[in-house]
Amino acid sequence: MSDFLAHINGPDDLKRLSVAQLPDLAQEIRAALLRYCAAEGGHIGSNLGMVEATIALHYVFDSPNDRIVFDVSHQSYAHKMLTGRRRAFTDEALFGSATGFTNPDESDHDPFVLGHTGTSISLACGMAKARDLMGGENDVVAVIGDGSLSSAVAFEGLNEAAELGGNLIVVVNDNEMSIAENHGGMYAGLAELRATKGTSPHNLFRDMGLDYRYVEDGNDTSALVRAFEDVRGCDHATVVHIHTLKGKGLPADEEGRVEGNHWHDPDRPAGAAPALPNARKTYGGMAMDALAARFDDEPGLIVMSPATPGSNGITRQWRAAAGRHYLDTGIAEEHAVAMAAGIARAGGTPVLATSATFFQRAYDEIHQEFALNNVPGTLLVFAGGLAGADNTHSGAGDVAMFGNVPGLTCLAPTSGDEMLRMLAWTTGPAQRPVAIRMPGEAVLAGERGGAYPRFTATAGGCGRGDGDGDLDGATTDKTTDATAGDDACGDRGARISVDGIAATSDAGNPWARYSVTRHGSQVAIMGLGNAYPLAEDAAMELDARGIHATVIDPHQYSTLDHGTLEALREGHSLVVTVEDGQLEGGWGGKIAAYYGAHSDAHNDVHRDANRDAHSDVHGDANHAAHHDGLPMRVLNFGARKEVTDRITLPDLCRRYRLTAGDIAAAVCEASIQ
Amino acid sequence: MSDFLAHINGPDDLKRLSVAQLPDLAQEIRAALLRYCAAEGGHIGSNLGMVEATIALHYVFDSPNDRIVFDVSHQSYAHKMLTGRRRAFTDEALFGSATGFTNPDESDHDPFVLGHTGTSISLACGMAKARDLMGGENDVVAVIGDGSLSSAVAFEGLNEAAELGGNLIVVVNDNEMSIAENHGGMYAGLAELRATKGTSPHNLFRDMGLDYRYVEDGNDTSALVRAFEDVRGCDHATVVHIHTLKGKGLPADEEGRVEGNHWHDPDRPAGAAPALPNARKTYGGMAMDALAARFDDEPGLIVMSPATPGSNGITRQWRAAAGRHYLDTGIAEEHAVAMAAGIARAGGTPVLATSATFFQRAYDEIHQEFALNNVPGTLLVFAGGLAGADNTHSGAGDVAMFGNVPGLTCLAPTSGDEMLRMLAWTTGPAQRPVAIRMPGEAVLAGERGGAYPRFTATAGGCGRGDGDGDLDGATTDKTTDATAGDDACGDRGARISVDGIAATSDAGNPWARYSVTRHGSQVAIMGLGNAYPLAEDAAMELDARGIHATVIDPHQYSTLDHGTLEALREGHSLVVTVEDGQLEGGWGGKIAAYYGAHSDAHNDVHRDANRDAHSDVHGDANHAAHHDGLPMRVLNFGARKEVTDRITLPDLCRRYRLTAGDIAAAVCEASIQ
Repeated sequence: MSDFLAHINGPDDLKRLSVAQLPDLAQEIRAALLRYCAAEGGHIGSNLGMVEATIALHYVFDSPNDRIVFDVSHQSYAHKMLTGRRRAFTDEALFGSATGFTNPDESDHDPFVLGHTGTSISLACGMAKARDLMGGENDVVAVIGDGSLSSAVAFEGLNEAAELGGNLIVVVNDNEMSIAENHGGMYAGLAELRATKGTSPHNLFRDMGLDYRYVEDGNDTSALVRAFEDVRGCDHATVVHIHTLKGKGLPADEEGRVEGNHWHDPDRPAGAAPALPNARKTYGGMAMDALAARFDDEPGLIVMSPATPGSNGITRQWRAAAGRHYLDTGIAEEHAVAMAAGIARAGGTPVLATSATFFQRAYDEIHQEFALNNVPGTLLVFAGGLAGADNTHSGAGDVAMFGNVPGLTCLAPTSGDEMLRMLAWTTGPAQRPVAIRMPGEAVLAGERGGAYPRFTATAGGCGRGDGDGDLDGATTDKTTDATAGDDACGDRGARISVDGIAATSDAGNPWARYSVTRHGSQVAIMGLGNAYPLAEDAAMELDARGIHATVIDPHQYSTLDHGTLEALREGHSLVVTVEDGQLEGGWGGKIAAYYGAHSDAHNDVHRDANRDAHSDVHGDANHAAHHDGLPMRVLNFGARKEVTDRITLPDLCRRYRLTAGDIAAAVCEASIQ
Repeated sequence: MSDFLAHINGPDDLKRLSVAQLPDLAQEIRAALLRYCAAEGGHIGSNLGMVEATIALHYVFDSPNDRIVFDVSHQSYAHKMLTGRRRAFTDEALFGSATGFTNPDESDHDPFVLGHTGTSISLACGMAKARDLMGGENDVVAVIGDGSLSSAVAFEGLNEAAELGGNLIVVVNDNEMSIAENHGGMYAGLAELRATKGTSPHNLFRDMGLDYRYVEDGNDTSALVRAFEDVRGCDHATVVHIHTLKGKGLPADEEGRVEGNHWHDPDRPAGAAPALPNARKTYGGMAMDALAARFDDEPGLIVMSPATPGSNGITRQWRAAAGRHYLDTGIAEEHAVAMAAGIARAGGTPVLATSATFFQRAYDEIHQEFALNNVPGTLLVFAGGLAGADNTHSGAGDVAMFGNVPGLTCLAPTSGDEMLRMLAWTTGPAQRPVAIRMPGEAVLAGERGGAYPRFTATAGGCGRGDGDGDLDGATTDKTTDATAGDDACGDRGARISVDGIAATSDAGNPWARYSVTRHGSQVAIMGLGNAYPLAEDAAMELDARGIHATVIDPHQYSTLDHGTLEALREGHSLVVTVEDGQLEGGWGGKIAAYYGAHSDAHNDVHRDANRDAHSDVHGDANHAAHHDGLPMRVLNFGARKEVTDRITLPDLCRRYRLTAGDIAAAVCEASIQ
C-alpha cells in the first residue's frame, strides 16, 4: 500500500499528489476509516462512500478560502484527515480527539458545528451572499446527501440558491439510500437521473433553477476532479450530482448493508454474543411489541418514524411484520408531525417516534397541527434528558421544549411497565395529543437491578422494589392504573392528607396526580422521569443523616398537581425537585414558582406558629410540625442552560450536583439556615 | 345581480345550481367579500382569487365526507360562505362571528385550525393514509398557494404524496405572487409551466412523482369543475395547478396591487389621512432607518425577511432603497435563519425580522445553526407577547421559546431608543447571536404620552418621564449605555447597594444588569419589556396604599442578574415579576426558582433577625429592614399556558390579573400573610 496519507497535514500536501495517485490515497484513507470505526464506532458507511469525493473536493478547491459545508457533517472524517487532523483517525492514542462532526473549534476548514440534516445549502447560500456583498472571490460548496435532501429546509435552500445570482456549488451525494432507505417521490426522480446518466429532462434541480452536472461514478477520483474543476469559479448555482456507494469497502455485516453501516458500534463485534440493548432500544422495542399485538384489531393504528427507526428499537424485522402499520417518512420531522395530525383527525391512531433533538425541527407543527388542533396522537420522545452525546444530539432541552406547549400532555414514565400503561392510554382512551418521554439509562439500570451504572455512583440506593423491574410483564391492557404507585412504599412515615384539596385541573389524565412513593417528613424529593431513581437515592442518603424524606414520582410535566403540592405543606418545609435536563424552562422551576405565588393554605395555623417558626427549624430533624405556615422552600436540581459536547453522564451529574450526596448535603444546608 | 348566495346553507344547495349559474354566484360572493373586508378587514386578495376555485371544489367534491384542507386557511372565506356560515360574511350583525381561518369548532367542513404555511399537504397525506388503512372511500384535497409552496414542509408533503399510493389531490393555487412577491428558483419553473400551459417537460410536480394537470384560467368555474371532476376519485396523487388572479375584483388601492391586498385594514379607508402606525411598523421602521443609514459604510449589513416585510415596517420604499442590503427569502423561516448564520460566519451582519410565531418554524435552526454556532447575528422578534390575535398568531409563547435557547442573548427593550441602542450593539460590538423582542403597543402607548390605551385601564400611572419618549431621537451611535436607566428615577427611595456582589455571568453584555428605575423598599416590581409600563403603574397604585415599591427594568431575559437579585434582599421581602407572555417556561419563574435555590447571602444578619422577623412584617409598611434573612417571596404575573383566539388585550389582562390594581392587591395580600 502507498504511504501518502502520513505526509498530508493539510490540503496543500494533497495538492502535491498527481491525480493518478489519488486512488491509492483513497485506499489508505478507507483502510484507516475501517480501523478507526472498528475501535471507536461512528458513521462508517457514509464516510466510506465519501472518501473519493472528499479527496477531489480538497484537490480542486482551496479550503478554507473556499468554503465547504458538509451537511449533517457526520460524513466529514476524510475531510478531517485531509485538513490537519489525520492522527485523530490514524493514531490510536489520539482516537476520539476529533469530534464526529465538523467543528470550528477544531479547524478553520470547518465552518460550522452541525448534526441535523438539510441546512448545508442554506448555510452555503449565506456564505455566498456575504461574499457577494463584501466583494469576495471564493467558491462556496455545500455537500449534501444520505437522505438529507428530503429534509424540508434543504428544499428551501435549493429554492434560494438559483436566485442568489453568484457562485454556489451543491454536491449531491446520491448513494441511493437514506439511513434506512429513502422515502418519497423525489427519489424516483433521482433514480431516473441515475438511469439516464443525468440526461433525463425530468430534473428536479434544473426545475428549481439550478445548473446541473452528473458524475456516474462518484467513487472515481479522476472523474470527480474533472467535474469539480469544471464548476469551480462558476458564476451561478450548480448542482454536481454524484452517484456513490455507501459503505464502499465495508464487508456486509450481520445487520445487512443498509442500516448496519450507518453507525458502527465497536462494542458489538460481528459474531459476538449481542450486548444487552440500551434504553432506547429496550423501551422502544417494548412499545413496538405492545402496539404490534393490536394491529390486527386496530386498522388505524400506525407507527411513524422520520428515519432512524433502528436506534429506537424499531427493528427491521418488526417493520417488516408491521407492514402498512409502519411508515418511514424519511428525514422529515415537520411533515411527520403534521401527517400524524392528519391521521388522527381522520380517525387513525398515530404513534410518532424519534429522538428529542430531532423533534426540534417540528416545534411549530407540534404547537399548531398537533396540540392546538387537539388531535389524539402520541409522540414517543427518545433520548430526552442528559446524556454524553455530542452537542447537536443532546436531549437536555426536551422538557423545556415539550413541557411549555399549550395543550400538550407530557408524560415521564419511571419504568417500562408504566411506559406501556401510558402508551395504552394515549393510544386508547386519552383522545388527546401526548408526548411520552421514553425512559433512559437511569431507569433501565434500576430495572435491571444494577447491571448498568445508576444515575450516580453513590453506594446504596433503595432501588425500586415495587415490582416494576419485570420487563417481561409488559401489558397491553388498555385500563390504566396511575395510582398504583401510591402503594409502592406502603405505610412508611406519616401519610400525607389530601382531603379537601382541589383536584388537579387536568381532568381525565390518570397521571395528572403525583404519586407519593415514600412517606416522610420535613423534606419532599420529587424526581421526574429518569431522575426518579436519584430522588430515591438521595432519600436513602438523608436517612443516614436523620432526615426521613418523602419521595414523589410526578409521572408528568405538563401540569402541576396542586393537590399534592398543597398537601406537602403539612409536615414539610422544603421541596427538592430533581430532573435530568435543563432547569431553565424545565420542570422544577414551576414548582418553585408555584410555592412562591401561592401562600400557605393554613393561614390560621401560620399566624399562631410564626413567632417561633424559624428558631427551631433544625437541630431536631424530626420536629417538623412547626414549619407549617412558613413559605415552602424549593431547591431545583437539574442542568444549566448550556449545550454539552460528549461529556459523560457521570461527569455531567457531578457538574450539576445531580448526585445523592450533593442533594443530601444541599438539603442539610438549607435546613440549617 | 343574481340571488343564489342567500339560499346556500351548505354544499348541497350549491350542487343544485347549474354550472352555467356558478359565475353569477361567484360575482355575489366576490361582492360580499368586498363589503365584508371593507368593514372587518381580512386577507382580501387571496380570498378574492379563490372564489371560483372554492365554488368548483364544493360543486364537485362532497365535503365533509371528502376532506378539503386549505393551507394557512386564510383564503377560506368563500369556503365558509358555502358551508353554512354565509351570514357571518353577509349580515353585518354577524360580522366577526366566523374566524379568519378554518376551525373545526365552527364546522365539520373545517378539518383543522391552521394559520402557518405549508402543512396542508402533510395533513392531507395523513387523512389519506388513515382512510386507506381503515377502508374509507373519500377523496382528500389539499389547497395550497399564495407562496406557501416554498415553505419547506410543503416539499416534504409533496415528497410523501406520491409514495402513499392512494387518492390525494393537491390544488396548487398559482397567483404568481406570495404576500410580497415570490422568491426562489422554483417560481421560474412555475412560470415556465404557465407559459407552456402546463406542457413543459420541466415539471417540479411530475419530478416528485405526482400526476399533474393544468388549468389556465383558475377563475373560470366551468374549467375548474371539469378539472376537478376528472381527478375526483383518482387512485393516486395528482396536482391540479390552477392559475388564478389574486385580488380579482379589487380596485388597485394606494398600497398597490401586491402587498396591499394581502390584508385589508378597514381602519384606513382609501384617501383618509393615515392613522398612526402600530408598534410593529413604528419600531420596525425605526430599526430599518437606523440600519439603512449604515449601508454605505457596511457592505455586509443585510436585512432579511421571510415574507411579510410590510407588517414589520419594512416598507416597499425602504426595500427599494436598500437594494442588495435587503433579502426576502419567501416564506422559509428555517432557511432564513440558517442563511443568516452563513452570512454571519462569512463576515456579514445579518438582521432577520419576522413575527414571534413564525420563528417557531426555525426553532431547531435557532438552536443549532444560530446559537450553538455562536454566530454574530440579530433576530428581530415582532409581535411577541400577549395580543388579541387569533390562535395561530399569538406571540404569548415567545419568551418561553427564545429565552431557553442555550447561547442566545435575548433582549427586551422598553423604549424605541433602547431598542435602537440594542440594535446598534447587536449589529456591532456584540459579536454573538441575539434576539431582540421588538416593543409592543404598551411601550408605544407610553412613548406617545397616552395617545394609545395603556396596557391596563388603571387611571394614573407614572409614565416613563425619562426622555425615552422622544421617538425622533433615534440614534445609530454604536456606543451603548445600558446603565443610563439607573439614573432615571434619581434619588427617590433608599439606594440599593450592589457593592461586593458578584457581577453577572454574562460578561460583555451591556444589558445583562437590571436597571433599578425607581428606588423603594419592601417590594420590588420587575416588568419585562412590554410589561414594564405596568410595573410602573402598579408601583403608583401601591403608593396610595402606603407601600413605596422599587421598580426594575430587566432589559433582557436570557440571564438572571444575580447582583441585583442579591442586593434586593436588603430592604425587600417580596419580588413581583410581570411579563406579557406565558409564565410556564417564561421569565418570572426563573426569578422564583433563583430565590428558592439561593438562601440568604447575609446569614449572620439572618440569624440575628429571624426571631422577630415574621411578627412585624406588616402594619408598618416602611419598616422593612427586619425582613433581612427571610426567604424572598416571589409573585409571578403573566399568562397561563394556553392559546387564546381573538381575545382582546384588555380582556387578556383581566384574565391574567395583569392590571395595576390586581398586582397591588396581590402585594398587599402577600404582605399581610
